[in-house]
Amino acid sequence: MPASPIRKLVPYAEAAKKRGTKVIHLNIGQPDIKTPEIALDAVRNHTIEVLAYSMTEGSETYRKKIAAYYAKNSIAVSADDIIVTTGGSEALSFVMGTIMDAEDEIIIPEPFYANYNGFATALGVKVVPIASSIESNFALPPIAEFEELITPKTKAILICNPGNPTGYLYSKEEIQQLAELVKKHNLFLVADEVYREFAYDGREHYSILREPGLEDRAIMVDSVSKRYSMCGARIGCLVSKNQEVIQTALKFAQARLSPPTFAQIASEAALDTPQSYFDAVSKEYVERRDLLVAELQKIEGVKVAVPQGAFYCVVELPVSNSDDFAQWLLEKFEMDGETVMVAPAAGFYATPGLGKNQIRIAYVLHKDQLIKAVHILAAALKEYNVQ
Amino acid sequence: MPASPIRKLVPYAEAAKKRGTKVIHLNIGQPDIKTPEIALDAVRNHTIEVLAYSMTEGSETYRKKIAAYYAKNSIAVSADDIIVTTGGSEALSFVMGTIMDAEDEIIIPEPFYANYNGFATALGVKVVPIASSIESNFALPPIAEFEELITPKTKAILICNPGNPTGYLYSKEEIQQLAELVKKHNLFLVADEVYREFAYDGREHYSILREPGLEDRAIMVDSVSKRYSMCGARIGCLVSKNQEVIQTALKFAQARLSPPTFAQIASEAALDTPQSYFDAVSKEYVERRDLLVAELQKIEGVKVAVPQGAFYCVVELPVSNSDDFAQWLLEKFEMDGETVMVAPAAGFYATPGLGKNQIRIAYVLHKDQLIKAVHILAAALKEYNVQ
Repeated sequence: MPASPIRKLVPYAEAAKKRGTKVIHLNIGQPDIKTPEIALDAVRNHTIEVLAYSMTEGSETYRKKIAAYYAKNSIAVSADDIIVTTGGSEALSFVMGTIMDAEDEIIIPEPFYANYNGFATALGVKVVPIASSIESNFALPPIAEFEELITPKTKAILICNPGNPTGYLYSKEEIQQLAELVKKHNLFLVADEVYREFAYDGREHYSILREPGLEDRAIMVDSVSKRYSMCGARIGCLVSKNQEVIQTALKFAQARLSPPTFAQIASEAALDTPQSYFDAVSKEYVERRDLLVAELQKIEGVKVAVPQGAFYCVVELPVSNSDDFAQWLLEKFEMDGETVMVAPAAGFYATPGLGKNQIRIAYVLHKDQLIKAVHILAAALKEYNVQ
Repeated sequence: MPASPIRKLVPYAEAAKKRGTKVIHLNIGQPDIKTPEIALDAVRNHTIEVLAYSMTEGSETYRKKIAAYYAKNSIAVSADDIIVTTGGSEALSFVMGTIMDAEDEIIIPEPFYANYNGFATALGVKVVPIASSIESNFALPPIAEFEELITPKTKAILICNPGNPTGYLYSKEEIQQLAELVKKHNLFLVADEVYREFAYDGREHYSILREPGLEDRAIMVDSVSKRYSMCGARIGCLVSKNQEVIQTALKFAQARLSPPTFAQIASEAALDTPQSYFDAVSKEYVERRDLLVAELQKIEGVKVAVPQGAFYCVVELPVSNSDDFAQWLLEKFEMDGETVMVAPAAGFYATPGLGKNQIRIAYVLHKDQLIKAVHILAAALKEYNVQ
């Protein structure tokens, strides 16, 4: 497996910190938002005497409550359509194992979440990228381009909606185009919807599970990590109305016995989080995004794909190689004793050469920190480009 | 993936319960022993505000404490030799992915823990079984038989010590024979040592990590599940002095981000469990084993492999097909409104036809329940064999 481009930067970040330079992290998707008290309290108040295995597919009460949450989001599924997993990561890995054999292909619009590559490599399946472009804000590539990539080995199309790293929110029309495509070519449509709650500017998230007639082909992956700022819980789920998919995925689940019990307690309680929590979080992210985009657009030669969801943003910089620039930021640059760590975007592309002048910024920092980080980035670009 | 033979019985057990028959479960390895209070309290007293990702390899404080625990068990490893995993299951899956490519082979003495098959199938690697026998109490098969099975595709030998389902504890001499073998043929030796603390009758557990000269080839898998009766935590680890193995396994770990945070808190605290807890647990299991074996030996035609560790026992029954017998127990038999559910042993063998007259019993029940269960089994065998 290849090392991630962010990982390669870690030793440089550590060296910078050792030199006394403060590093502002724009590179990680770990929200600073507080976890809902209701979830943390549920774990504090546990009454467990024997910390036993839970059900392989997740506790029944929890799955019923998840189904009720989906119903509120116009997604009609039952507890039997849900397998609780150890993070969205495990759900993705189960999905790939369930619908693909070694050598099979899955088409994914790039840039995409780099760990999709990791799961695919572990299972010996092939990721076939299809490029989306910063010029169109990373909208869905034309369907004709998908069709050119479909082979007898193609089993599925995977999207992340809203997107990490793009922040792009697919429209209902785009989802419907994909639905037609997978029906025509007898494929699955897999959607990573872990950022569902983070849709901004009055836009509505349209889940693949809402699309009529797609019941047998739609597989959705979800997670509590970002929704409730509970990344450390490691609870996600896999949802499909296709019972053959669920039963096969269950065999993978049985091999690992059960998802973690304490985290299921927290996740079940989190479902009672009041709407005011999400409203406040959403307001905060929109303010951060607006601020970030406005500050970035002041820098000459910088292009920003304005995110409509999630809390990531792909930014094109006036540099030829953002890997080198990211390393230089940590190795050679500081402003008043501080520098920034960014995620080079090439790691989110499968096609060699793409994204070389792009970075991903995660706006999971307080606004004053974000402003400072962008100012450091601006000063750094000025210095880097006159070198 | 094939369905496990125990899973196939579940609908029959549910039907029996619906008829009002009480089912005593001899089939599952979920201990009834209480989890140490110190572990449960640590979670009750958590002070988390943002439930963030932990380190991919597990928190540093926890890994340091694990290393100290191993030092007390004569195993010299450092925190850097340890990756904390989501259960021993994930550790096994990482090990197979790390040391094997698709089509590679791993030799495992059978009967073995059935989920080894699941991990192997998911990764496309091949399990090559080598039969051990109830006649020898499931001791290590002769080394010459291993050598006959080694091919250019063979990458490792995997043992479970003490064994599930056999309860067999490998001697130091047997470990040393395996060490010589893997050195001679340039293989890895992988040991699932999750039942390490359950070694009875004054026998000492000899870890593969204690064997001098095996540092580059020994990979150990561990778990808190059974040791502290914390199956629902889902915390295990992978341990090796071979840093190339650790670094490759870390890439698999990175793809799934981190092990669960609450469970790491519980597991770290569990390491302070007083020795008196283990002494009491060990005494209880030995009493259960002695009782179980004595009661079973009273039944005509029954042969028992006396376990030296863990809490499982393989039993040969005077039946031709224990799958059918197990189903019959649930479907047709009851004594005073009760019956028993057993695990047919064929599911623990990879060689078709082996273990057909054997079952696995997990002695994780109170003694009075165990006695009752064996009496039910005896009565059932009498009725079954005159049919």
